[in-house]
Amino acid sequence: ITVDDYEQAAKALLKALVIREKYSKLVYHRFPRTTILHSQLDAFCSCITRADVVTYLLAEMYPSPNKGVDPYSTEGIPEDLHYKLSLKDGVVHVYKDDEALQQEQPHSLPYPDLETFAIDLSHILAMIADGPTKTYCHRRLSFLGSKFSLHEMLNEMAELKELKSVSHRDFYNVRKVDTHIHAAACMNQKHLLSFIQSTYHNDAERVVLEKDNKKLTLKEVFAKLKKDPYDLTVDSLDVHAGRQTFHRFDKFNAKYNPVGASELREIYLKTDNYINGEYFASLIKEVACDLEESKYQFAEPRLSIYGRSMSEWKNLANWFIKQRMCSPNMRWMIQVPRIYDIFRVKNLIPNYAKLLENIFLPLFLATVNPQQHKELHVFLKYVTGFDSVDDESKHSDHVFSYKSPRPESWTTEENPPYSYYLYHMYANIMVLNNLRKQRGLNTFQFRPHCGEAGSITHLACAFLTADNISHGLKLKESPVLQYLYYLAQVPIAMSPLSNNSLFLEYSKNPLREFLRKGLCISLSTDDPMQFHYTKEALMEEYAIAAQLWKLSTCDLCEIARNSVLQSGLSHQEKKLFLGERYLWDGPDGNDIRLTNVAQIRMAYRLETLYNELSFLLDAINSARTEEMGAPVGPSGSELSACLC
Amino acid sequence: ITVDDYEQAAKALLKALVIREKYSKLVYHRFPRTTILHSQLDAFCSCITRADVVTYLLAEMYPSPNKGVDPYSTEGIPEDLHYKLSLKDGVVHVYKDDEALQQEQPHSLPYPDLETFAIDLSHILAMIADGPTKTYCHRRLSFLGSKFSLHEMLNEMAELKELKSVSHRDFYNVRKVDTHIHAAACMNQKHLLSFIQSTYHNDAERVVLEKDNKKLTLKEVFAKLKKDPYDLTVDSLDVHAGRQTFHRFDKFNAKYNPVGASELREIYLKTDNYINGEYFASLIKEVACDLEESKYQFAEPRLSIYGRSMSEWKNLANWFIKQRMCSPNMRWMIQVPRIYDIFRVKNLIPNYAKLLENIFLPLFLATVNPQQHKELHVFLKYVTGFDSVDDESKHSDHVFSYKSPRPESWTTEENPPYSYYLYHMYANIMVLNNLRKQRGLNTFQFRPHCGEAGSITHLACAFLTADNISHGLKLKESPVLQYLYYLAQVPIAMSPLSNNSLFLEYSKNPLREFLRKGLCISLSTDDPMQFHYTKEALMEEYAIAAQLWKLSTCDLCEIARNSVLQSGLSHQEKKLFLGERYLWDGPDGNDIRLTNVAQIRMAYRLETLYNELSFLLDAINSARTEEMGAPVGPSGSELSACLC
Repeated sequence: ITVDDYEQAAKALLKALVIREKYSKLVYHRFPRTTILHSQLDAFCSCITRADVVTYLLAEMYPSPNKGVDPYSTEGIPEDLHYKLSLKDGVVHVYKDDEALQQEQPHSLPYPDLETFAIDLSHILAMIADGPTKTYCHRRLSFLGSKFSLHEMLNEMAELKELKSVSHRDFYNVRKVDTHIHAAACMNQKHLLSFIQSTYHNDAERVVLEKDNKKLTLKEVFAKLKKDPYDLTVDSLDVHAGRQTFHRFDKFNAKYNPVGASELREIYLKTDNYINGEYFASLIKEVACDLEESKYQFAEPRLSIYGRSMSEWKNLANWFIKQRMCSPNMRWMIQVPRIYDIFRVKNLIPNYAKLLENIFLPLFLATVNPQQHKELHVFLKYVTGFDSVDDESKHSDHVFSYKSPRPESWTTEENPPYSYYLYHMYANIMVLNNLRKQRGLNTFQFRPHCGEAGSITHLACAFLTADNISHGLKLKESPVLQYLYYLAQVPIAMSPLSNNSLFLEYSKNPLREFLRKGLCISLSTDDPMQFHYTKEALMEEYAIAAQLWKLSTCDLCEIARNSVLQSGLSHQEKKLFLGERYLWDGPDGNDIRLTNVAQIRMAYRLETLYNELSFLLDAINSARTEEMGAPVGPSGSELSACLC
Repeated sequence: ITVDDYEQAAKALLKALVIREKYSKLVYHRFPRTTILHSQLDAFCSCITRADVVTYLLAEMYPSPNKGVDPYSTEGIPEDLHYKLSLKDGVVHVYKDDEALQQEQPHSLPYPDLETFAIDLSHILAMIADGPTKTYCHRRLSFLGSKFSLHEMLNEMAELKELKSVSHRDFYNVRKVDTHIHAAACMNQKHLLSFIQSTYHNDAERVVLEKDNKKLTLKEVFAKLKKDPYDLTVDSLDVHAGRQTFHRFDKFNAKYNPVGASELREIYLKTDNYINGEYFASLIKEVACDLEESKYQFAEPRLSIYGRSMSEWKNLANWFIKQRMCSPNMRWMIQVPRIYDIFRVKNLIPNYAKLLENIFLPLFLATVNPQQHKELHVFLKYVTGFDSVDDESKHSDHVFSYKSPRPESWTTEENPPYSYYLYHMYANIMVLNNLRKQRGLNTFQFRPHCGEAGSITHLACAFLTADNISHGLKLKESPVLQYLYYLAQVPIAMSPLSNNSLFLEYSKNPLREFLRKGLCISLSTDDPMQFHYTKEALMEEYAIAAQLWKLSTCDLCEIARNSVLQSGLSHQEKKLFLGERYLWDGPDGNDIRLTNVAQIRMAYRLETLYNELSFLLDAINSARTEEMGAPVGPSGSELSACLC
């Protein structure tokens, strides 16, 4: 690799980091202080000052529900701001009053417009295809892998010794968060089966479904299906993925229908049905109960908002509060399926903008005037983020660019591409977060499914827009993105058992390699109903990874620590679970008595990251020295201008 | 492959089957009726008549403890037979009275002498090295693998459909037996930890150990170890295997010492200690309780008899009865470690014969005169078999042959080889079983560890002497033995997670291939304390195999059915768990409502075995036709003479 190439690669990588930093800051996502400070990113980038760093890092300190207070209380709800709202170019705009609305003078809530985003994205895309940068990243990643092997050989026993000397704390009682799990599949198949049988036992005569204007009791539903629930088995329930679902996302989706009957999905796995989602709520609460009993396990189930109509949010919030869904061991997320095309074909919505309006406008309304949307206001306290979900391997004919049609003009029956979805969700969440921040309300993280299959552009897109992602398998195929995800320590919730049934055999899963190189990896179950066998799905996930990849206790506890970091648990909870100074990188930020991660490991990770960042700086500094004939600090205005 | 070679291979294989049949029959081991009848083994072998076949197959119908009766009752114990006993050439001989003893006229209890055994073994050994036979077996095995793939492609959905139509029965509620588990490691690490902590909480002042003539309380023991049990974690307990134990059986054995302290092993994991094994009993009973709760899971824990002294049996039986160890979900086995050398070096025994006497004479005494050995007599009702255990990869300088020294003359400090141990255990069990059969008492199966590591001669040896084996990994390396284990349907308890930590990486484990070819495979945990993470070790073992190898429900249920067949559960229990006619091969013997194994699968297995056996017969018949110019039935005297 020539000096020129090296310099070019370093510049490109630092620039990419600056871009992510900018995108993260605007939406109140997190960015590692080490990367900011040690790469002197603050010096390169006019938008960060050193003083900023600390406040910014603590920005995620959204309030967590207080103990002892009724979690569903509608007291002390903020006043109506009387703001006006209007969707423009697919993003909700906030106006002080009708006058401002008419004059099109929105509040100065930042969001990157489509052009800026498209240009920034194309920078990243150009860079991941750039030869010298690819070589550089590939080499650094190989080096990181070998370095970890060396670390392991030299320090494995020392790490173990450290862990042995920690009282009370071992892998079984460190906190673990299931960072990626869908509410509709959060129970295992046996659990669902028993639940169905018990409802039939107690509730056979209850009307549970309205179909074609006919009300059906549970008994009638099963009679229609020609099934006796007492005879059901996990085989006939048929919700488990298997060899048949490999590379068949459609078949996998069909597994959500117990006994292949969409009626049963409707009755048992939906929040908005004839019985007001009562069964679904009971099922989830049973899962929550098990988590609370385990004490050390947490989960972040995803509930669906589709964008078919504005009322979805109200219904979901009502369900949540009526069913009293709060659990200290659960934090909630909202998943939005990318299925505009289906709604469009059915003529449920006229264009893509309407989908966005249905998804986001209610949130803005509830933020501006919580008095009128009390349930949604309360529910949102427990929502920590958004997910974007669907089969990534689906191809889209449209190539996203600054010339892409505005959402209002997207009226075709074709589904927009992944990047288009991500940009619009990100932009709306950003405006919403800034508005909520101003009001002192909690903000949301964007945590899309990304890199499970399909194009690697998805990963470039999420590098800008996501706080953290689920899956990330495809990082295997792009050394540049993999290295960037490493440098920016973007958390990745991986689910190797899910992948094993859908997209990638277990033995080929890159998790082990990612972990060794130092990417921020956590383990999650995705869909226990479809993938797991035992009562403790998350432990099954950890156990299999530990066995197959011969992970050490320190490895496992590092993964568990990552999962808490990645999660939407509150600042207070993270302090409790990881240590007061968990926001500091390296040994300083690690309380081994809580995390059971060896300080040797923490030091290794921090030093290694330092080292990689220094390498980038060295490249730029030495280039400058050569050019200028004298050393110049990296805060030189020319450099920062060229990067910012 | 030429016709001559084919003929030679077929003859050799049939001869090997005849030999195993002979060895099995004598000791009341099982042999599949399909192989006997369809290979016309009865015609080849003067020792079987067709009428024999049925009685023989039911021979394993040993009485199971009756329900409602006190399991520890010493009532109705048979009378003293006043027989005399004497060890000769390492095998216990039974004499009618003193006169018979003096005249050396023992009861006619059959056992093969060392010469016969050595010659039969050398036949098998010669055969597994024979080129044409190797080629033949290798081809048949490849064919079996491909045939199964075809079966899978054609019938997978049909099998699944069959299973879906079965009411009430699925993988979760078919009976599964953990066919290979050591009592001293039958709890998981977390369970052991909690148990230690709870005993300390309740019993700190109790004297639990006598060492160097000093009595120590639990508190003093921990003080001496400089450990506070409240601070203990699974890390400091350090009983879990990991990367460090791979190919290090010595390190693995050391993991049986909690916190690396042999004192704790003595206190918690031994039956014969200062507290009369009370803690160990409580631990095992907690495991039994979990099994009983699960309802469908059973285990066959192994307890140790070392052969250091004659009193071991009495102590073990007393422990069993005093601690009331019976559980409907457990059947007991005795493991004998192959550690003559250790006892010899310490001068605890003068020769190998003494070891055998210590192990077997008490059993004969209790069989001849149960009145005087009431506890042992009662305990033996619940013992179903013997295991031979130790590191198979240890090399022995001695090569076993008919010239090997008799046990009385084996006085060196060198450990005898594996085959020597196996022969003597087998011979004694055979005499014992025949004696017990005459008295109407239950008999024992010999189920050694075999083929985990070391030489493949171990597997040849077990082919003659064992009812079934644990591990069998090394079958991978010998096509002839693998094919013979298939033809004779020798059950193999495999423990891929154990192997993964000790001898063979999971991905290289041959279990999947063995299963596909039709070998009789079951899944077992070996040592949950060392290998497993979750509360349900056996389910973890099944789950990992299912995930990694993408096993279908039918595969899993077939493995579970095999485990019940292989186990020492009684005839009555097997009828209850597998169906009235479980001894019949193929669909006729399968009650799908109990086993959840598709009839299509059962038919495939039976037809495939038929086919392989017919192939062997055809080779011999066509050879004879050529020679004689006219077809001759396989019962021709010449042929059976040449084979028997």
